[in-house]
Amino acid sequence: MKLNVYVTLKPGVLDPQGKAIHHALGSLGFQGVEDVRQGKLIQLDVADSTSDADIDSMCRQLLANTVIENYRVEKA
Amino acid sequence: MKLNVYVTLKPGVLDPQGKAIHHALGSLGFQGVEDVRQGKLIQLDVADSTSDADIDSMCRQLLANTVIENYRVEKA
Repeated sequence: MKLNVYVTLKPGVLDPQGKAIHHALGSLGFQGVEDVRQGKLIQLDVADSTSDADIDSMCRQLLANTVIENYRVEKA
Repeated sequence: MKLNVYVTLKPGVLDPQGKAIHHALGSLGFQGVEDVRQGKLIQLDVADSTSDADIDSMCRQLLANTVIENYRVEKA
């Protein structure tokens, strides 16, 4: 079973990577970019028998830092 | 206009971050994880007038290294 886990910074958390990309896009001459945030995409290939609870546990224990990040799991 | 850009390593390109996550999941006792790949998710907020060509150009010039990475743009 293929899973995509999207990990994004919570609103309000500073995102220096996003800021750097924003700045670089401006330097390259791209107009009208209002905001950039960078997150992570983690593609997992797990056994079909893996429970939703286990998947959630993987996210909470390792993939996302739930203090500052949100995560969303999508079955691909 | 909000865009999500998903940047993933091309198949065959070594992914040490993914390997580290895979190993860590094993250490935490999660069974049945067959493969892990890590990519990037970049969330852009751009002016509605931004053309698809400009968006593609941003990806090719800055957001993705097209030698080793694929990218996919999704309008959110």
